Amino acid sequence: MRFFEDIAIGQRRELGSFTFTAELIKKFAAQFDPQPFHLDEEAGRRSLFGGLAASGWHVGSVYMKLLVADGQRQAKEAAARGEKVAVWGPSPGFRELRWIKPVLAGDTISYASEIESLRSSEKRPEWGIVQGRNSGTNQRGELVFSLLATAFVPRRNSGA
Amino acid sequence: MRFFEDIAIGQRRELGSFTFTAELIKKFAAQFDPQPFHLDEEAGRRSLFGGLAASGWHVGSVYMKLLVADGQRQAKEAAARGEKVAVWGPSPGFRELRWIKPVLAGDTISYASEIESLRSSEKRPEWGIVQGRNSGTNQRGELVFSLLATAFVPRRNSGA
Repeated sequence: MRFFEDIAIGQRRELGSFTFTAELIKKFAAQFDPQPFHLDEEAGRRSLFGGLAASGWHVGSVYMKLLVADGQRQAKEAAARGEKVAVWGPSPGFRELRWIKPVLAGDTISYASEIESLRSSEKRPEWGIVQGRNSGTNQRGELVFSLLATAFVPRRNSGA
Repeated sequence: MRFFEDIAIGQRRELGSFTFTAELIKKFAAQFDPQPFHLDEEAGRRSLFGGLAASGWHVGSVYMKLLVADGQRQAKEAAARGEKVAVWGPSPGFRELRWIKPVLAGDTISYASEIESLRSSEKRPEWGIVQGRNSGTNQRGELVFSLLATAFVPRRNSGA
């Protein structure tokens, strides 16, 4: 994980890809979003989605999974180079989550994160506040998912 | 599910409660958010959260679970009364998701939904657009989770 000083507006990271199989879509839906079009191919085909569709919360949770994996990969690489690793603060939430197009069984979604704004924290000068536009794009290059995330990121000399 | 005409600003529904056990917190985290403070009691105690904490996406996914169950319950009750049941459109997303306080192992979160705004859809006059403030409150009455959701809701005479 990077320090506030190492982050610039427009920086983009590819977080990785994930294929939403029918089995995984149904498993998540059975636990958290048991609507017919998330559970059954035929009900999905008859719905506005036009096929078995992943729950939006599944699409978001997979973004989190890949974000965490990317952060752990970055931390490992930085440690291997003997660099200090920044420990980011917990996320206070996010804004403007959009489910733009359905994610259907068999779709592969590639997630990316792009820095949109940087500012200092007035209350806590040892932290910076980073906003990133996070997105998911399907195998046809169509944007399917987007959210604007906020993170508290330590400054290099903050002691974090 | 209700029709647009049946919904009024300020209407509140209790969606139900859920207890986040250590086992469920770890199970979700292992799949979608494998950060130490979501996976291990001791790492949680040493973190800013002060204990084994549920992933924010878990807190959100459980909201979805209870929202769906409440909708299905309402639909069943309306059908039993011989009333027409409205079929809501898919959610385009939401705004202002906030993780306000940690949800720790053993916490019971009660979710509720309150109508905040109503407007007509200009493009599709057969639909209304409803915004609802959805929240989660713990057993001490502290607000822990909030989001502003948008839904397309059919009008009574739209044929939906």
